Amino acid sequence: MTTRPFNFSAGPAAMPEPVLKQAAAEMLDWQGSGMGVMEMSHRGPDFTAIHQQAQADLRELLAIPEQFHILFMQGGGLAENAIVPLNLAARMGKTAANAKADFVVTGSWSQKSLQEAQRYCSTALAASNQESGHTALPMPASWRLSPEASYVHICSNETIQGVEFHELPDLRALGCDTPLVIDFSSHAASRPVDWSRVGLAFGGAQKNLGPAGLTLVVVRDDLLGHALPGCPSAFDYQKVADAGSMFNTPPTYAIYMAGLVFRWLKDQGGIAAIEAQNQAKAALLYAAIDSSELYENRVQAVCRSRMNVPFFLREERLNQAFLAGAQAVGLLQLKGHKSVGGMRASIYNAMPLAGVQALVAYMREFEKTKA
Amino acid sequence: MTTRPFNFSAGPAAMPEPVLKQAAAEMLDWQGSGMGVMEMSHRGPDFTAIHQQAQADLRELLAIPEQFHILFMQGGGLAENAIVPLNLAARMGKTAANAKADFVVTGSWSQKSLQEAQRYCSTALAASNQESGHTALPMPASWRLSPEASYVHICSNETIQGVEFHELPDLRALGCDTPLVIDFSSHAASRPVDWSRVGLAFGGAQKNLGPAGLTLVVVRDDLLGHALPGCPSAFDYQKVADAGSMFNTPPTYAIYMAGLVFRWLKDQGGIAAIEAQNQAKAALLYAAIDSSELYENRVQAVCRSRMNVPFFLREERLNQAFLAGAQAVGLLQLKGHKSVGGMRASIYNAMPLAGVQALVAYMREFEKTKA
Repeated sequence: MTTRPFNFSAGPAAMPEPVLKQAAAEMLDWQGSGMGVMEMSHRGPDFTAIHQQAQADLRELLAIPEQFHILFMQGGGLAENAIVPLNLAARMGKTAANAKADFVVTGSWSQKSLQEAQRYCSTALAASNQESGHTALPMPASWRLSPEASYVHICSNETIQGVEFHELPDLRALGCDTPLVIDFSSHAASRPVDWSRVGLAFGGAQKNLGPAGLTLVVVRDDLLGHALPGCPSAFDYQKVADAGSMFNTPPTYAIYMAGLVFRWLKDQGGIAAIEAQNQAKAALLYAAIDSSELYENRVQAVCRSRMNVPFFLREERLNQAFLAGAQAVGLLQLKGHKSVGGMRASIYNAMPLAGVQALVAYMREFEKTKA
Repeated sequence: MTTRPFNFSAGPAAMPEPVLKQAAAEMLDWQGSGMGVMEMSHRGPDFTAIHQQAQADLRELLAIPEQFHILFMQGGGLAENAIVPLNLAARMGKTAANAKADFVVTGSWSQKSLQEAQRYCSTALAASNQESGHTALPMPASWRLSPEASYVHICSNETIQGVEFHELPDLRALGCDTPLVIDFSSHAASRPVDWSRVGLAFGGAQKNLGPAGLTLVVVRDDLLGHALPGCPSAFDYQKVADAGSMFNTPPTYAIYMAGLVFRWLKDQGGIAAIEAQNQAKAALLYAAIDSSELYENRVQAVCRSRMNVPFFLREERLNQAFLAGAQAVGLLQLKGHKSVGGMRASIYNAMPLAGVQALVAYMREFEKTKA
């Protein structure tokens, strides 16, 4: 059991405690090498071993097929909003002039992705949940998919609105052979991925995978090699893949930390085991919200995020007291995103069940005494 | 005194031992916050304090004038090779069609910068030291500067060839008002910078400033706001500056580590003190090389780098024995860059004088017994 507070930050987010302990112990000397990991040449044998092990563990954990490349990059999800169209919009012999991509907007992040992509290609809004206030997901059968699109973009878990695709859309079953791009930043490695439905997945590491400053890109082989002329070399997937993520000096320490997280995930029993735990945590928290008079989550039950649980106090005047009381009992970073207000509990892989139990107990106590 | 080996890596490179110790001690709990730095929201009060302190300390250390912005970015020097022209080439009402930049090529890094910039603007080779085998620096008075260039690019310390500008060129004294861009990756914070001669300085952190994955950009106010239409938003200096380096989630832990390095530099007495130490270290090592029959450095004395000291054994068959013997006595990562061969001792700020003394003693002993 930990004596640390429980940290519900949406990201950068809590790390597993055993990972932090190992990192602290190895800070000055990694396994007798006489160097900390930060101090190693990225091309030397020690870091090469760390890097390869991290890639192999992630491939095993997420069952990533051989035809997908794992790229460790920089810039986070926001940079990928440009890097994806720079690499994919000109597939199939297209140019910047006739490139097109489809977007399904389900919250703040997919909206940002659409806006940035408009700078590189024409875009179409295939579907949106704006009308519902981002509380429901449009059924894939209703999406208006363009036959000439180079890719279809979704954010498979919206961190701010707390809506999640519990099943990825099967575009092929809808008669569409366009590659699906998923921004899975805030639920990567929280559940399995059906790679048969995905062309490219990207995510900033700072929610579920490791520290901020590392970006994971998993990209199918046939999507490499289509970069627009203006794509910076360091962000050209083909060049990064050819160089084994060593085109530029990679964020070595962040890769090491992610590798420790991957090993921790394996120790937990892998993705199936962590998914079961994530289901249990989310079920507990949503049940507590739904059974209360004070708290409210507005997202349709079938698309509620297991990772990011936004909720509101029906009496807004209690917000500050709720946050101050939570902080006092060691429940940190529960304030909701400034664009939506209220509260948000991000309960990523590293959040133990005990943390959610403590939160639920505090919420009940607060409701009983303050409301 | 340290008992760790001495690490001569060119980068990612050795970190000051007190910095690593503090980072290890704070890994699970930063100053009673109940969180490690990696786990903090980048917009929360704790990380905001860390970030602002790091910026303030760097500004003080390097005496960066108010009209310069300090940006913490991602992608390293290689990404900046695209990001600089994407932001600066279209200054003064230019477009991609008529944008132009001047390059002074003095080694591998400035050569790479030139190549990448050619993808965004027309480029001119203002000067080169190719003829000398990158062992001398062309005198600024001989540079062929184009009046219509948007900027003049130099690499102020070439990590691979070991040539360094000990004085930055004064373009204005040459009758040229074009902003000077310096890639100072591998000697940033090793010496003062004359900002009156500089428009923009950039550097990957992983030599002298902190871990890989952090890029420092110091840019004068009037150079913001000229980005080409294709510049990804996350790499648009104006947007990054407006957002206080929080346009996308910054590499928070790397910024924290850099902040610890900056505080350590202040504890050493600041840049003047560290420069004096760097001069002493370099003088000792070059004197040992020059006074030997076995070792050789081919760079003109006036432009020898204080940070990266490449040297060759006149008997190449001894290379492996030299490296193995060095490793055995705790002198690590001395192998030269694969493109030039031989040896290289990188003696950044974090390398104590004792490390150079140990290297010199080993070199003498090796020459005496093996050569």
